[in-house]
Amino acid sequence: MAVNLEELAAPEPDGSPVGLWPTSMRRQAGELTLGGVPTSQLIAQAGTPVFVVDEADVRMRATAWKRAMDSAFAGLAGADVFYAGKAFLCVAVARWMHDMGLAIDTCTEGELRTALAAGVPGSRLGLHGNSKSRAEIELGLDAGVSHFVIDSLAELALVESIAARRGDVARIVLRVTTGVHAGGHEYISTAHEDQKFGLSIASGAAERAIEETLAAEHLELAGLHSHIGSQIVNVAAFAVAAKALLDLRARTAKMTDHVIPEVDFGGGYGVRYTVADAVPPSPEEYARVLAAAVQRHVADSGLTPPRVSVEPGRSIIAPSTVTLYRVGTIKPVVLDDGVRRYVSVDGGMSDNIRPALYGADYTAALANRQPSEECVRTRIVGKHCESGDVVVKDLALSADLGPGDVLAVPVTGAYGRSMASNYNTVPRPGVVAVRDGRWRWILRPESVSDVLALDPDWAHV
Amino acid sequence: MAVNLEELAAPEPDGSPVGLWPTSMRRQAGELTLGGVPTSQLIAQAGTPVFVVDEADVRMRATAWKRAMDSAFAGLAGADVFYAGKAFLCVAVARWMHDMGLAIDTCTEGELRTALAAGVPGSRLGLHGNSKSRAEIELGLDAGVSHFVIDSLAELALVESIAARRGDVARIVLRVTTGVHAGGHEYISTAHEDQKFGLSIASGAAERAIEETLAAEHLELAGLHSHIGSQIVNVAAFAVAAKALLDLRARTAKMTDHVIPEVDFGGGYGVRYTVADAVPPSPEEYARVLAAAVQRHVADSGLTPPRVSVEPGRSIIAPSTVTLYRVGTIKPVVLDDGVRRYVSVDGGMSDNIRPALYGADYTAALANRQPSEECVRTRIVGKHCESGDVVVKDLALSADLGPGDVLAVPVTGAYGRSMASNYNTVPRPGVVAVRDGRWRWILRPESVSDVLALDPDWAHV
Repeated sequence: MAVNLEELAAPEPDGSPVGLWPTSMRRQAGELTLGGVPTSQLIAQAGTPVFVVDEADVRMRATAWKRAMDSAFAGLAGADVFYAGKAFLCVAVARWMHDMGLAIDTCTEGELRTALAAGVPGSRLGLHGNSKSRAEIELGLDAGVSHFVIDSLAELALVESIAARRGDVARIVLRVTTGVHAGGHEYISTAHEDQKFGLSIASGAAERAIEETLAAEHLELAGLHSHIGSQIVNVAAFAVAAKALLDLRARTAKMTDHVIPEVDFGGGYGVRYTVADAVPPSPEEYARVLAAAVQRHVADSGLTPPRVSVEPGRSIIAPSTVTLYRVGTIKPVVLDDGVRRYVSVDGGMSDNIRPALYGADYTAALANRQPSEECVRTRIVGKHCESGDVVVKDLALSADLGPGDVLAVPVTGAYGRSMASNYNTVPRPGVVAVRDGRWRWILRPESVSDVLALDPDWAHV
Repeated sequence: MAVNLEELAAPEPDGSPVGLWPTSMRRQAGELTLGGVPTSQLIAQAGTPVFVVDEADVRMRATAWKRAMDSAFAGLAGADVFYAGKAFLCVAVARWMHDMGLAIDTCTEGELRTALAAGVPGSRLGLHGNSKSRAEIELGLDAGVSHFVIDSLAELALVESIAARRGDVARIVLRVTTGVHAGGHEYISTAHEDQKFGLSIASGAAERAIEETLAAEHLELAGLHSHIGSQIVNVAAFAVAAKALLDLRARTAKMTDHVIPEVDFGGGYGVRYTVADAVPPSPEEYARVLAAAVQRHVADSGLTPPRVSVEPGRSIIAPSTVTLYRVGTIKPVVLDDGVRRYVSVDGGMSDNIRPALYGADYTAALANRQPSEECVRTRIVGKHCESGDVVVKDLALSADLGPGDVLAVPVTGAYGRSMASNYNTVPRPGVVAVRDGRWRWILRPESVSDVLALDPDWAHV
């Protein structure tokens, strides 16, 4: 076996923001406590599986982004941080972001309504989406969103026609493809991009969209946008993309005399899922690299600096959350090179599709009591009827694990609950926020009856 | 570009069961009609996106399996067909299966309750699952399920303890790993299997489970089970696995004098998603190969023949269903070797995760009107904020496509709605059954308010 299991064991929680655990997590009297709430209390009252969000941790990470951007861009034209709602959004999370001074990126009616219900003003909301419906565009205009992010000339025309009929002016941010793609430590840079998002700089589509936006009576060209990938820990990739975006801004100014007021460098800031992952750059490091790119652009072009946005989602919400699962059956499976212990839990690919979808690695720790000193080679699997239903592929875990024990899987705050399904008619877990020794639901758990309620032939039996 | 687009264009519907479309689909007066219901009527009344199931097609495919197995095993000890509910289950589908003489495989409380609500007697239900909860085992015993499929010694002990406390006897089917894995045209055969399902024959775990089941007062050893993979079109793989399973039955009879009455050869029977896929074997071909394996076993061992089960899911429900999407934005993307037209629709990875999850290929056709003679290189993408949100990767599609057109994607009946999510707070589509010119919901569509109703801080705004 190539992997070193010891390296994949979860570290004990120590309050470090890159220690994999939410910063308030501690092991006390043997069991894990989060936000001052012991695992035993949580599982007795909220059940399993359950997502548990450390509210203070979310606020800390949101604030870290806000402060880093404010500080780096103080001498320029300032900055905004848009929380990427797709990672995980509910009314409480939207409120926290707004409290901490962040704006929010939405991309559908549902995300928009959630943020509005949290009291976030439209002016603090962006509306993304490569295929917005008319109703979504109308809702965006009704709410007075900060801007519409646009990926095609067709959608630009659609927004213009709707805004014209209403006598409104829609603020437009044009998403462009710079050719830079990144993820992890590597990045590539190509001319043409084969993807649904963005208007190509290389093909001229981006410039044409700029011209059309400037010419349209009911559109205001507010900004340019670039998004280069996911789970990126390479700050250099952001610098390359930023330069391409800022060069387009400079060319536009030269050609049209219009100085585009904003640029958005998108999201994709990486997090650590296991100790095998590198410690990602801090918000300060990302902000410093982006500010340096803007500084150079201002010096080279002589233009006034743009106001800058970034769109972190995962890096704010993922590390703040753990999933608690209850252990079911355990069995040893004999392999050619030894024995692997399969530990089944009461959730799986319905609450975390990332291992199956992206081959994502996670780790886990025994949550309800002190683990034994001895660890054994373990795979944590879900309860779904699919062999790819893996929760943690490889880890070293307490040798004395038994049915009924509780496992905590860290870094599950992003793309876990937000991508959850009812596969095998399994109800989706709820999300609990913990803070100062108290917990509350911020998303209720489903019951089997909730799931079956969509069936018109269902009668409660 | 390596793919031949013409080969990936959807054929016109012609009533063929392997023509990719449900057998009742026709193009009439330009538009597609399904079960006698025109696309225009469906989208006007049910909206998009929507799953549309051809009820007669489902019944035809279910009956084909039932007849094939009955016929092949008539001279032996007979056969049962268990519909694999995980592919897609709702009360109506469970009723159809029961009507056509099929039993149903379930693996959770929700699937079990759905089948029971349909009036399927417990004796016609199997209960799978590698990590059944106590509540699920109790519910299975309450319902008098035909059998519990068991994957571990730990779960065997758990079922025995629960049955003992109740004074019940649980019928047990032991799932074993034969080392045979298949998918598509290839199969492999190994001794050890690194997966959560099954008790290994090679390691001795299967024989130990047989002994423990036979020794347990509250367990009845009803059968042996093997499942070798998904999307298999290679009948030889089933023959190899069947032999391993039947050899174990023969060894058991020799060692214990117990002749295990049933064997279950599992599921995994492949379907065609595009015309590039081979035409899969018919139920008759699979049944013939399995019956031949049993015939040889009876001849070699001198034992009475076992009653045989199979568990088709996808092969019954997938080809019966199409998804209708409405076209949103369309844009050309310039590539190094030409132009690809990106067509966005009003659904995507939230209603069909298979392209992102398995790299699955699909095709599509223009549904609401006659396509133009000319086709262009097209990719159909969803509306989610993820570049992997692809519906159909490569196809040739009518050159005159425009916003508001309706596309039909065939073969979406399995693992589409059943794995659907609310990613980006997008409501899940409903499922419509069509028959004899009429349609009705068999699973209601969600509204945005349905999705937000799980948020305790949500107030309808």
